[in-house]
Amino acid sequence: MISATAQRRHAIDLDDFTAEEIEEILETTGSMKEVLSREIKQVPTLRGRTVVNMFYEESTRTRISFELAARALSANIVNFTARGSSVEKGESLIDTVRTLQALGAEIVVIRHSQSGAPYLVARHFNGAVINAGDGRHAHPTQALLDLFTIHERLGQIRDLKVVIVGDILHSRVARSNLWGLTRMGAQVTLCAPPTLLGPATYWTTTWPEVTISYRVDEALQGADVVMALRIQKERMQAGLLPSLREYSRAYALTPERLAGLSEKTLIMHPGPMNEGVEIWPEVVTAPNAVIEEQVTNGVAVRMALLYRLAG
Amino acid sequence: MISATAQRRHAIDLDDFTAEEIEEILETTGSMKEVLSREIKQVPTLRGRTVVNMFYEESTRTRISFELAARALSANIVNFTARGSSVEKGESLIDTVRTLQALGAEIVVIRHSQSGAPYLVARHFNGAVINAGDGRHAHPTQALLDLFTIHERLGQIRDLKVVIVGDILHSRVARSNLWGLTRMGAQVTLCAPPTLLGPATYWTTTWPEVTISYRVDEALQGADVVMALRIQKERMQAGLLPSLREYSRAYALTPERLAGLSEKTLIMHPGPMNEGVEIWPEVVTAPNAVIEEQVTNGVAVRMALLYRLAG
Amino acid sequence: MISATAQRRHAIDLDDFTAEEIEEILETTGSMKEVLSREIKQVPTLRGRTVVNMFYEESTRTRISFELAARALSANIVNFTARGSSVEKGESLIDTVRTLQALGAEIVVIRHSQSGAPYLVARHFNGAVINAGDGRHAHPTQALLDLFTIHERLGQIRDLKVVIVGDILHSRVARSNLWGLTRMGAQVTLCAPPTLLGPATYWTTTWPEVTISYRVDEALQGADVVMALRIQKERMQAGLLPSLREYSRAYALTPERLAGLSEKTLIMHPGPMNEGVEIWPEVVTAPNAVIEEQVTNGVAVRMALLYRLAG
Repeated sequence: MISATAQRRHAIDLDDFTAEEIEEILETTGSMKEVLSREIKQVPTLRGRTVVNMFYEESTRTRISFELAARALSANIVNFTARGSSVEKGESLIDTVRTLQALGAEIVVIRHSQSGAPYLVARHFNGAVINAGDGRHAHPTQALLDLFTIHERLGQIRDLKVVIVGDILHSRVARSNLWGLTRMGAQVTLCAPPTLLGPATYWTTTWPEVTISYRVDEALQGADVVMALRIQKERMQAGLLPSLREYSRAYALTPERLAGLSEKTLIMHPGPMNEGVEIWPEVVTAPNAVIEEQVTNGVAVRMALLYRLAG
Repeated sequence: MISATAQRRHAIDLDDFTAEEIEEILETTGSMKEVLSREIKQVPTLRGRTVVNMFYEESTRTRISFELAARALSANIVNFTARGSSVEKGESLIDTVRTLQALGAEIVVIRHSQSGAPYLVARHFNGAVINAGDGRHAHPTQALLDLFTIHERLGQIRDLKVVIVGDILHSRVARSNLWGLTRMGAQVTLCAPPTLLGPATYWTTTWPEVTISYRVDEALQGADVVMALRIQKERMQAGLLPSLREYSRAYALTPERLAGLSEKTLIMHPGPMNEGVEIWPEVVTAPNAVIEEQVTNGVAVRMALLYRLAG
Repeated sequence: MISATAQRRHAIDLDDFTAEEIEEILETTGSMKEVLSREIKQVPTLRGRTVVNMFYEESTRTRISFELAARALSANIVNFTARGSSVEKGESLIDTVRTLQALGAEIVVIRHSQSGAPYLVARHFNGAVINAGDGRHAHPTQALLDLFTIHERLGQIRDLKVVIVGDILHSRVARSNLWGLTRMGAQVTLCAPPTLLGPATYWTTTWPEVTISYRVDEALQGADVVMALRIQKERMQAGLLPSLREYSRAYALTPERLAGLSEKTLIMHPGPMNEGVEIWPEVVTAPNAVIEEQVTNGVAVRMALLYRLAG
């Protein structure tokens, strides 16, 4: 019997991951986290293999996270950004990918502002493609690190109530988490002002097990996990929010709002945060906030994916 | 007897390479290609040695190609670009090179928009200088990878008819290939509209064995190798071309134009390509097109040069 | 007894270094320089450890120097620049540092245009912070490499007469050297036009052993070491200098001005230089100029610091 692992070539979204495969990845992530806890945080697993970081959108944590993950496995990692590259000469994404392949790249990690760009890359690349965030579409490694963090902290994912609060409509993190969380049996509640959520039927058609709420106090009741999403100032400029302050009053994770929750309820945020907008500084530093753990686990989960996709 | 190899310090253009030395480099390239075909594509040859990529002009394939070549030999490679560097403080090229030398750089790879910049660097640097493309002057590693590709595919270079089509006048690739191909005994035909070729006597004075043609159908007859060069939109703006479309009608490599050639005739392009301008998509994917092989061979040829120049 | 070494976590300025600790660092630097003189310039000391270069200000020599130092110790080094990072999304310095820590960074090297930025970083980072230059405040690794160069060349620092000439007022190099040189027992003379020095009492209050001079010929008498500092054109624009030419006439290190000095007097400059402004080309290439040696020693001194701070 061939496992799902042996068949997978790309990680572009979690929609085509089975629960079994996600479990396997979380297990591998655990082993990788052990490597990172050693004094010499490096194993020779992917020595001489080449990973390319193609970042067409700015990023700190994700780019460096992949870079450190690749190095911890002793792979070569080449950084390619749109600036200072032939992209400025008008070279197309497909040409660039073909070139990278001919140069010997085996894994491409791509972040792009256009939803779907990683699929285009995958059609023209013989190696593995990992989506590091594309437009509003997907951010599967973020969702996997969130799943790992929840599972490591709470011992399970199934039957947990996970509340996602914030700009759901524009969030690739929310989408990938919806696939991952529902596949693993969690109960997901989405909470946002109507302009940052869009038509409720969109969500409940795609993920029938999802609950929608426009009131954060209601949504938070009985939550095992609360995930805040970043509110971008651009939304306000686009007329979707009257003001950041108004959003904060109604939806921010404040100590008062979270006071009724269990001490075990996890507080998560994919970062970068706007402290004082969608989340209060006291909440960020609370004992049950695992926001920095998420970042730490991100390196391990990317090691696990690189390892599995490199075959 | 000391071989030419032992004496060489720099690779700035192919005009001072003997046929014997080029043969030696192609042989070393073959060994390096074997390293790249292994599962662990890395040898410890240049461990602890420092190569600096000085790119004053944008590039994807060449920069990454040198980066991967250096890493495959376990060298340290430092990327230095004009942006975000002391060049913005007005530091001169010479000062920068002296600094890199004092920092311990042993090989400098330089790309610069000014023809001759690598010679300037070589005068102030005790290590080795490799020209990765300077203005309209030279691009020796491109020519060497072209020679390797031709030799690997056709078993010889001597007596082959090689046709170079496109913007010859502004092409450093054409110039370096002219030195390399004629030194190795090939018959070279240059084919371009008069405005992209300049005075024919310039070419026939420097390389007396070269044939000039303004008509591509005539030039292609009996060709063993056809190299297309990139047509830059800037040429049109400069008044050297009435329009890209007119160039395409008269000079593009189309399936029709190549129909009369042998199935063995190689189709080459140094990239990045303007598909639909100087070359047709069907030609790029034809069985005798070796455009991606050129990119692949580029890493091996750069490994060979780094290895030989590092002494 | 616990040595100062065991206690130190950061290197932000030399004001809290004892003479004993500086001596220890210079000794370690000597060992590191020996590593750099080997054919394989690499030791496995910091394998699997992560150093982050956070450069918010442009730099060639310092960034590459730290990069090569980290690699010579086999550490991973990640380059982080303000461009193309989440800093453009408005992420604060503190958030960035917390993220880097969560990602596994153990040493942060920071250059920033704001004086004091490294202290802010140190308050939010559990690892070690090395200041690679902050505003007008400090540049401790530059001062340490200057101390090492003086000591290696002249066999001592105590009782030497060191003259610093140039834009003292805006120079972090001058400040860090003042701490280092006075701690090691040197006699320091500061020489600059009044507008580039500021109130003399500022200097003599902080470093009572320092001598102030506005006349370079007077200041240079009996000097064992002469350090020129860079004159920035911005000073002229700010009205602090009537013209670069006027500065040159009165203060530049010319062969004539230095003619009366001993042949052993060292000529130093932290670079990048404005040749023809603060220093004459003939002085730069004189036998007693050690400007390139300073750059070379910089790699070794940074290796020593990384090694000691990594614990």
